[in-house]
Formats: sequence, C-alpha cells, structure tokens
Amino acid sequence: MRVRVDLNISLDGFATTTDGTPENPIGEDWMRLVAAYTATRTFRERVLGDTSGGGTTGVDEKYASAYFDEVGAEIMGAGMFGLHTFPDDPSWRGWWGDEPPFRCPVFVLTHQSRPDLEFDNGTTFQFIEATPQEALERAVAVADGGDVRVGGGPTVVRDFLRAGLVDDLHVGIAPLILGDGIRLWDDLRGLEQGYEVTAETAESGIVHVAFARS
Amino acid sequence: MRVRVDLNISLDGFATTTDGTPENPIGEDWMRLVAAYTATRTFRERVLGDTSGGGTTGVDEKYASAYFDEVGAEIMGAGMFGLHTFPDDPSWRGWWGDEPPFRCPVFVLTHQSRPDLEFDNGTTFQFIEATPQEALERAVAVADGGDVRVGGGPTVVRDFLRAGLVDDLHVGIAPLILGDGIRLWDDLRGLEQGYEVTAETAESGIVHVAFARS
Repeated sequence: MRVRVDLNISLDGFATTTDGTPENPIGEDWMRLVAAYTATRTFRERVLGDTSGGGTTGVDEKYASAYFDEVGAEIMGAGMFGLHTFPDDPSWRGWWGDEPPFRCPVFVLTHQSRPDLEFDNGTTFQFIEATPQEALERAVAVADGGDVRVGGGPTVVRDFLRAGLVDDLHVGIAPLILGDGIRLWDDLRGLEQGYEVTAETAESGIVHVAFARS
Repeated sequence: MRVRVDLNISLDGFATTTDGTPENPIGEDWMRLVAAYTATRTFRERVLGDTSGGGTTGVDEKYASAYFDEVGAEIMGAGMFGLHTFPDDPSWRGWWGDEPPFRCPVFVLTHQSRPDLEFDNGTTFQFIEATPQEALERAVAVADGGDVRVGGGPTVVRDFLRAGLVDDLHVGIAPLILGDGIRLWDDLRGLEQGYEVTAETAESGIVHVAFARS
C-alpha cells in the first residue's frame, strides 16, 4: 500500500490559479496549467467519459493512466470537492458530476457535517473532520489493499507531506509563470531526503518530477 | 547579440541559499544546488583551472560549456561580486580570485563608487550605478559583437527579466526543496509569453529549462 499524490503545478510552484470565479471556477490559467493532462487519453476516457479513443498517448499519458491505477481510497480537501464555493448549500454535490472519476471511497476533509454521497460508479464521498493521520487510517481501512491517493488541494497535500505520510509524489510542471496562488513547496525544506527523485520531460513540454520513498 | 541568463535554482524556485556565513559564504546548500554544474568539465577547467580533463561530459556539460560561449560582456549584482560581504573594505577584490572566469568586461551594479579592477586574463570589473537598460547599453558597447550575460544574483536577473531585456534564460533546476532564500520567479507572471520554452533532463537529475526569445 502506497500513499500517493499527483499534482499539476506551474514552474513557479503554484498548484492553484487565481482567475477563477464561483460561476466559472475553471479559469484560463487553470486550463493552461492542466492542458497537457486534459489532453491525455486517460483524462478523456476516465474524467470526460469520451470513449472514442482520442487523446495523447505519450509521456503525459503514462502518468495520467498511473494516476488512477490501484487506488483504493481518496482523500481530498473541502476546496477540491467544491465546498468552498457553495458552503451554505447542503444539496451541492460538488464539482464532479454524476460520474465522479474516483470509483472508490473518497474522504473530504471539512469542519462541516454533511451526509455521505453515493454514486452508481462506486464513488462515495464522506465528509470528515480529521488529522492527516486519522484520515489516512480511515482511508486505508476501506481501500481493500489498494493505494490511498491524497488528491489535493495543495494545502492538504502539504499537510500530508509535512506529516511524512506520502510515499509517492508526482508533479507535472507546466512551463508557466503564474505569479500567484497556493504554492506546493512552502515549508517543505529537505523534503527530498528519504526519497528518490527522478525527472522526465514529456513531448508537451511538461516536466514530470517524481519523489518515491524506497 | 543576445542577452543571456543562466542560473541554478531549487525545485522550489530559490536561486540563493541561506546557510552561508561571511567567513564561509558557500554553505552546504549551495554546494548541493550547484553540485551537477561544478562537476562538469567546463567548470573544472574554466573556473577551477583544472586542466586534467576530468569532469562530466553529458547534458549538464552541454549547458555549462554554452555558459561562457560568445559572451562579450557580463553584468552582475554587487552581491555576486562580493560587495555585500565586505562592504567597507575598498581593497576587497571579490570572490573570483586572481583568474576570474569571465575574461571580458564585467559591470558590477552598485551604489558604491569603486576603482576599476583589471586582471591579466582579460577580466575587468567596473562598478557602476545604472538602470538595467543603461547597464545593458554600456555592456553592449564593449562586448565587441558578443553576447551579454546577466550573471546574477536573482534580484538583478529579475530586474532584467521584468524590463524585457533578456533573450535567453536557462535554469538548471536541482531536485531540492530549500524552503528559503531569494526566489527567481517572483513577480514574473506571464514571463513565458514571447519565449519558446524547452526542457531537458540531465543524467544527474537536473532539469534544464530554457526560455528563448525568437
């Protein structure tokens, strides 16, 4: 069992963008940041439900397909689910539509108490207030031997990294300077110690950097 | 004629380290940050004066040898010359020893008035108070058709980048999280526009990212 993180970040280290609005949360910066990922065959099939077989099949796709492999449970922050955008709407079912791509139990870290959500494709969302350690224990307990992914956002990822709980960190670095947002790397001095770090450049220009704990 | 920058930065974007002291300005963090560069054949020959033919000859060396190619004049900040460390010693001749590796006119940006320094190998240091544009004009005037390198530190480089004066920016990104220092990328949102950005991974694990203005 591995605890895994995958994020798209800019060259200046930002894992979030700042030009989104509540009505249109995905701004142009975000589209540029994730352009190579959303162009992959895996993203098109798994997230968009496009089974036409399109999408890129190079280095970006290698990482994209690994993203969902053997994940038995997911942990994410309230913002990644969408709670920050409509905090007072108890019927809001998040950004992820009727077929969330997770297909496993998802724990959403929040101080809010909300009823569980279940989807036909095996995705469930449970809203819990927990430390990283506690959340991880709950995720491991239901992951059926699979890996646990910490999906994001970057603040949640940093909490798990600082707590030493992450075995595999993969970042896709887009050659953009965003200038503002939430930085992935803050307060993580020496993170590389205890990991093997490798890097690989995709055809798209994305630099994939992977930290793997041995 | 191109205006060029080469810097070593950490994965979290720092181009300076924080564990140096006036007595021992090159701390362990700096040694780790530049380890792959200082291992190259070019660095050994050109900077250390080691003509034994040792040093790496892979991707890092390709960038290291390009570093000095066709440079006709150099611009650097006071800190890179060494003025910040011994600001009150008019006889201090900087960090660069008796054979500074530049072998061309070097302009040191400072508010201090200091006499020029000349070295036998063709390196001269002139201490000038100037805007980036003014410094560049002076450098171009003496570069004899060669390129102008903006050597550093990162604050000076950012000034030139923000002023739109840099044609080629090469960064060697070391897979380290330093956590503190001076960030190269601050206040450079959208820098990638107007450049072609390419990336390449060296055997050492360094990711070389190059911005080239067409």
